Amino acid sequence: MNPYEEKALIISEALPYIQRFSGKTVVVKYGGNAMVNDIMKNAVISDCILLSLVGINTVLVHGGGPEITAMLGKLGKETHFINGLRYTDDETMDIVQMSLAGKVNKDLVTLIARAGGRAVGLCGLDSELICAKKLDDGKNDYGYVGEITSVNTKIIEDNIRAGYIPVIATVAGGDDGHSYNVNADTAAAYIAGALGAEKLILLTDTKGVLSDKDDESTLIPKIATDEIDGYITQGIIVGGMIPKLRCCETAIRKGVHSAHIIDGRVAHSILIEMFTPGGIGTMIDNTL
Amino acid sequence: MNPYEEKALIISEALPYIQRFSGKTVVVKYGGNAMVNDIMKNAVISDCILLSLVGINTVLVHGGGPEITAMLGKLGKETHFINGLRYTDDETMDIVQMSLAGKVNKDLVTLIARAGGRAVGLCGLDSELICAKKLDDGKNDYGYVGEITSVNTKIIEDNIRAGYIPVIATVAGGDDGHSYNVNADTAAAYIAGALGAEKLILLTDTKGVLSDKDDESTLIPKIATDEIDGYITQGIIVGGMIPKLRCCETAIRKGVHSAHIIDGRVAHSILIEMFTPGGIGTMIDNTL
Amino acid sequence: MNPYEEKALIISEALPYIQRFSGKTVVVKYGGNAMVNDIMKNAVISDCILLSLVGINTVLVHGGGPEITAMLGKLGKETHFINGLRYTDDETMDIVQMSLAGKVNKDLVTLIARAGGRAVGLCGLDSELICAKKLDDGKNDYGYVGEITSVNTKIIEDNIRAGYIPVIATVAGGDDGHSYNVNADTAAAYIAGALGAEKLILLTDTKGVLSDKDDESTLIPKIATDEIDGYITQGIIVGGMIPKLRCCETAIRKGVHSAHIIDGRVAHSILIEMFTPGGIGTMIDNTL
Amino acid sequence: MNPYEEKALIISEALPYIQRFSGKTVVVKYGGNAMVNDIMKNAVISDCILLSLVGINTVLVHGGGPEITAMLGKLGKETHFINGLRYTDDETMDIVQMSLAGKVNKDLVTLIARAGGRAVGLCGLDSELICAKKLDDGKNDYGYVGEITSVNTKIIEDNIRAGYIPVIATVAGGDDGHSYNVNADTAAAYIAGALGAEKLILLTDTKGVLSDKDDESTLIPKIATDEIDGYITQGIIVGGMIPKLRCCETAIRKGVHSAHIIDGRVAHSILIEMFTPGGIGTMIDNTL
Amino acid sequence: MNPYEEKALIISEALPYIQRFSGKTVVVKYGGNAMVNDIMKNAVISDCILLSLVGINTVLVHGGGPEITAMLGKLGKETHFINGLRYTDDETMDIVQMSLAGKVNKDLVTLIARAGGRAVGLCGLDSELICAKKLDDGKNDYGYVGEITSVNTKIIEDNIRAGYIPVIATVAGGDDGHSYNVNADTAAAYIAGALGAEKLILLTDTKGVLSDKDDESTLIPKIATDEIDGYITQGIIVGGMIPKLRCCETAIRKGVHSAHIIDGRVAHSILIEMFTPGGIGTMIDNTL
Amino acid sequence: MNPYEEKALIISEALPYIQRFSGKTVVVKYGGNAMVNDIMKNAVISDCILLSLVGINTVLVHGGGPEITAMLGKLGKETHFINGLRYTDDETMDIVQMSLAGKVNKDLVTLIARAGGRAVGLCGLDSELICAKKLDDGKNDYGYVGEITSVNTKIIEDNIRAGYIPVIATVAGGDDGHSYNVNADTAAAYIAGALGAEKLILLTDTKGVLSDKDDESTLIPKIATDEIDGYITQGIIVGGMIPKLRCCETAIRKGVHSAHIIDGRVAHSILIEMFTPGGIGTMIDNTL
Repeated sequence: MNPYEEKALIISEALPYIQRFSGKTVVVKYGGNAMVNDIMKNAVISDCILLSLVGINTVLVHGGGPEITAMLGKLGKETHFINGLRYTDDETMDIVQMSLAGKVNKDLVTLIARAGGRAVGLCGLDSELICAKKLDDGKNDYGYVGEITSVNTKIIEDNIRAGYIPVIATVAGGDDGHSYNVNADTAAAYIAGALGAEKLILLTDTKGVLSDKDDESTLIPKIATDEIDGYITQGIIVGGMIPKLRCCETAIRKGVHSAHIIDGRVAHSILIEMFTPGGIGTMIDNTL
Repeated sequence: MNPYEEKALIISEALPYIQRFSGKTVVVKYGGNAMVNDIMKNAVISDCILLSLVGINTVLVHGGGPEITAMLGKLGKETHFINGLRYTDDETMDIVQMSLAGKVNKDLVTLIARAGGRAVGLCGLDSELICAKKLDDGKNDYGYVGEITSVNTKIIEDNIRAGYIPVIATVAGGDDGHSYNVNADTAAAYIAGALGAEKLILLTDTKGVLSDKDDESTLIPKIATDEIDGYITQGIIVGGMIPKLRCCETAIRKGVHSAHIIDGRVAHSILIEMFTPGGIGTMIDNTL
Repeated sequence: MNPYEEKALIISEALPYIQRFSGKTVVVKYGGNAMVNDIMKNAVISDCILLSLVGINTVLVHGGGPEITAMLGKLGKETHFINGLRYTDDETMDIVQMSLAGKVNKDLVTLIARAGGRAVGLCGLDSELICAKKLDDGKNDYGYVGEITSVNTKIIEDNIRAGYIPVIATVAGGDDGHSYNVNADTAAAYIAGALGAEKLILLTDTKGVLSDKDDESTLIPKIATDEIDGYITQGIIVGGMIPKLRCCETAIRKGVHSAHIIDGRVAHSILIEMFTPGGIGTMIDNTL
Repeated sequence: MNPYEEKALIISEALPYIQRFSGKTVVVKYGGNAMVNDIMKNAVISDCILLSLVGINTVLVHGGGPEITAMLGKLGKETHFINGLRYTDDETMDIVQMSLAGKVNKDLVTLIARAGGRAVGLCGLDSELICAKKLDDGKNDYGYVGEITSVNTKIIEDNIRAGYIPVIATVAGGDDGHSYNVNADTAAAYIAGALGAEKLILLTDTKGVLSDKDDESTLIPKIATDEIDGYITQGIIVGGMIPKLRCCETAIRKGVHSAHIIDGRVAHSILIEMFTPGGIGTMIDNTL
Repeated sequence: MNPYEEKALIISEALPYIQRFSGKTVVVKYGGNAMVNDIMKNAVISDCILLSLVGINTVLVHGGGPEITAMLGKLGKETHFINGLRYTDDETMDIVQMSLAGKVNKDLVTLIARAGGRAVGLCGLDSELICAKKLDDGKNDYGYVGEITSVNTKIIEDNIRAGYIPVIATVAGGDDGHSYNVNADTAAAYIAGALGAEKLILLTDTKGVLSDKDDESTLIPKIATDEIDGYITQGIIVGGMIPKLRCCETAIRKGVHSAHIIDGRVAHSILIEMFTPGGIGTMIDNTL
Repeated sequence: MNPYEEKALIISEALPYIQRFSGKTVVVKYGGNAMVNDIMKNAVISDCILLSLVGINTVLVHGGGPEITAMLGKLGKETHFINGLRYTDDETMDIVQMSLAGKVNKDLVTLIARAGGRAVGLCGLDSELICAKKLDDGKNDYGYVGEITSVNTKIIEDNIRAGYIPVIATVAGGDDGHSYNVNADTAAAYIAGALGAEKLILLTDTKGVLSDKDDESTLIPKIATDEIDGYITQGIIVGGMIPKLRCCETAIRKGVHSAHIIDGRVAHSILIEMFTPGGIGTMIDNTL
């Protein structure tokens, strides 16, 4: 078999997966370090355009911690963290909004356009896409850190119908007219739930959920939502992976069919997850 | 790179080709020996469904010489050929119509359905899709061998719009109410032209157009329509390849962007032609 | 009154019937000897086009026993019947499919086109229109004789909406990928039921249901579904009329408003049934 | 052949005519004495509904001289005629408008509803359907007698598309905001022209155009527009038939395919004209 | 602030009201003396066009007592009243229908067209918009006075969708094919109910509901439907205001959000009611 | 007249203007100091929502010089101007993009949402709305200052059709994948031209074009495009007003009906311009 025949064979093997997902919705959450590497970024962009061309409604949700931190650094603005949440004063919130909705978001949209796709850059403020209220844990004041209260998907759906890939920066609007800083994973989970998505894919910079976080060979390929509490109370899953799993749980509970924590450092990991039998990373769903 | 990463990479490399052809129309002519082998047949079917899923309007046109010959054999019906054309009496025409429109056509439709696609089996008689008159070369009587007079694409377009892959048996209807036996390559060329197709792909059982028909290493990868006469008068292209090239010329003249004579014995040759940089077989177009 | 005034008067008398049925669906089952006579065939075709023009969704379902028998005869292929069902081996099934879907079906489509109508020739294999499984009565092996398991009307409805008269050959597809021979009356009843048709009209070569099958003056003009068992157990209705009545019963049970067993030997019997106060043949419905 | 078979045969003979006119537009002008007889009125209504059900866009235009005259009589209002035109003062115009748009029009609409049709009663004032200016022949003052300046068919087309038979009273609106009395035949001709109608049918109380107006056996079945001047200058066509012929000429010049002056005293004369080979009355078109 | 700045400010203050009512339906009942004054009539027309332009579906329902009375006067026709209802013989009914559907209705449509709006003049006879039966109170014969039995809003909705302001004369059709004289307020209430209107606005020639009918300073600005019985039994509301309140009650019970009895003698009272915080007249709704 | 009656009268006087502009497109350019004042900002927002509710397609284009300057100040980033253009290095371009597309744009969208409107925040990068190349005057290097090469209005039109007010930040995308800083007035003019807008409205912080720039009493209410050169060469129009006039000229040349330079410091100046006879500021159009 010459190389082109092999390539054609491989493309043809994707057919059953394309058939299964065509007409369905996939929400991809992208961020963190996977976003820094240009090659990886172009691979993510390319995957999203490909999904969209084969008839899968693709929504790209992103945060942008590194960009925010860099900008705050340039301004000499110091921020402190409480329970892992960045205390967000008025000026910080401005920087968050500008970085996410003005820089990261529109740069992604530009990349999609340059790769031949058609994208629209939205944030939670557009037509009240993401609404939030001040986070209140009864203990600390986190400033303009918000808790999502509702997601209005109409503007997403209108733009999908008109043929655009919605790229969404996770800045939310409050009832008080102020912008709020919300967790991007959580926002992606809420959006996936509100859209009745087939899949929520969280691109991270690990292989997936590991039973020993320092050993990539300990990947847990499949977790049922009912197992999550056990894994956490037994201390198997720790640290930043806990909120990520909780997001997945939320999405599944809101009706998403499966959630995936996959390795954004691997090129085309979205295609691996969606179009190959092996999949990649950890899948979370309802079934034991 | 593990195998899944490699597969995903290869799939992702198809993106620019999918982008280029999405929303366009491709007419695939399928027949002859490529049709006999079940593995090859399934590959063709799978390719057509894949094209259709990535937004390419795919039309499958077929003849079915071997089926006709087998049926005539069972009936003990002898037929003779005049200038390479089967003399087609009334009874033979019945067998042609039954074999093509009733057997080969509906079997292809069944295969598509079983592979998860949605197809509709048409022939030239449906809503006067292909109209023909008795072939008259001023010398011989070929019986119900027809010459195409017009192609009405409305029923093809209506069924594409409703989401079906049209599979078309090349039986034509005459003004006299009788069915006519028309050449399948020619019918495919007329249909491609009438649809304003991007590509006409003729699946054959050779590598393409060869400058020495007995040596597959002499493939001519690209022929401009203006070169065809030369190739023929110089005796480089001979035999059954001449009418195939004339069909391609006709299609290009009617507005098809490129025509391709490719090797139906290679699995997924349609995908190789459409989604890889190398292509396959011989391409015919307007450009020198 | 001159003849034209009389004709106009008669046409005008059809108005209330056209009003009653406009926008509704009528499934006409056509076959047997009524199909052999060309004048009668043209009258059926003409009636179907007329129904369709006055806004009635008209579906023509047909079998084609005589064509099959003739073809088998030419092949010197002997078939035997078990309980009135033709034992259908692989080769016989091919002949059935070719004759019905390739010959009878496309010839009807041609006749409709020549009469100025627009038809599409489908069979149960197109987009899985009629699905069947091997008939299993626990006693005999009938070969590829099938029992209908489901009917998918989408392709019928799509083509009605696009303005075509669907003409359907009653060949079914099995889960095993093989084609099956199914009873045309039953298929028509299932299709009428799945479409929520107003009427199922079975064109036969008798006057209708007779209380003495040898005396055409004993026509029973109206049978309620609740009376069918009684008629049969009392031996009033016998022979081939029993399965026809059972088909009508099935259709009514699936929601068809009325079923009609009418005389296909009378020209324009469909119009007589639908557009004149007298009607024709035997009507079966829910009401005593 | 029993009577029902004969009726069905006659209905079936209408098929080619229905095919020819389906999707086209017919404007029927109705008025005068044909309107007085209830049986004839019901026949006209029934014909219009039938045309509309077989897919012909049917527009009914009417005047109502007798109703106007009766109303003026009850009021003891005397009117005088100048050159055959009723001098229309303000009060007379009110009576004209009330009689046509309020009485004749809505009564026709009621009759259509009672016969199972769906009609909307419009007049030239609705959304500026018929615009007129004061008739000025440089000699006499005719009061509010108007000359049509334009016809806006949008409201007709919107209501046809929504499934209604537009019934139009020929009262026009002037630029001065006043209503104007316009000739109903002329209005029908303008409307037919503006709609690009296939046919304009003027229902009259004669057999058609006669070469001897006192001898009904002298019907001229066909007049080319180029012959009209000759017929008039030679004195063959005289009196009230002259303006009717001029209306037909106008309609043809504006693009109507044929115009017909037919006998409204014959029941279902519209159907005779449209659906029988003989036709009825006089046809005017472009061809000699 | 210069006058234009003030005007712009005032227009801008209407924004929240326009937002609240945009896409909703308002039925305006217009009649009586408010209809006589040309300035007031133009203001009503202008208000309706404005509502319609800001996206409010506006339906104008009217009676026309004064026009009817004037016409009857001209004819020297005497009518007598029984319990406040005009005894309506055949001839009177003709005058009612002609005056309402032919004169008042079409004049309003003309005024709307002249003011740049697009209106269609309908009455209860058009496509059976308002159906009625003979009023039977078990005591008196009122002739063709009708009681509404049903309202079919399809023709209203079709014309709203096509962009027209429906203007509706309150003449109803009976099962006997005769026209009936129905109360215009009641018709408006039924139409508003059937349309699921947001508001029913009755334009009258008083300030609204007064607790002392001779003292305009005693306006009751708000009445809950539950209070109506009390007001009447206590003799606070008397005379012609009682049926008007009952109409409002009917409309609210059929699902209209609020009903308003307002002063048609005040220019632009509809806009005052809808677009200013003060409102005008008396509002009736469900809330105490 | 009580105050509510006066308000209603004033609203009603806007009717002819609403009628004239309904269904047309208006591009409002907003920026500079008018943007700083919250009351004025809310008035602009409210005007845009009102225009949109009365059926006028409203597009809000904005720059944001003060926000950019403030942000650069915080960063201690010094910028210099060449010929009035800010030299834009890579880091400055980031700040421009973040401030315009991330802050000013999304804050405007939030304000519209809070005022009950539905807006989508776009910039020139979304689906390649505004394309630019590096400004090259043959003399200076301005860094990432761009010159507009094309405007693709599809994403604007898709969002208008879906019911959103497009708010557009004037950041452009280059062929090199870099973002470019373009003049907001020019971008508004190009967008208005590409949309075939009825009006381009530039909100400024002067009364309009003055013949003595220091004397607001010297407003020139109307300038024909043919007069612009004269005014400039005669030194009547000077300074920053010159490029603004050139923008208006460009827009008119591209097919916009009229351009307006109006006073953004006056509340509701957009409504004054559009809905009052006086208008405001300076109108530029084709007519002398």
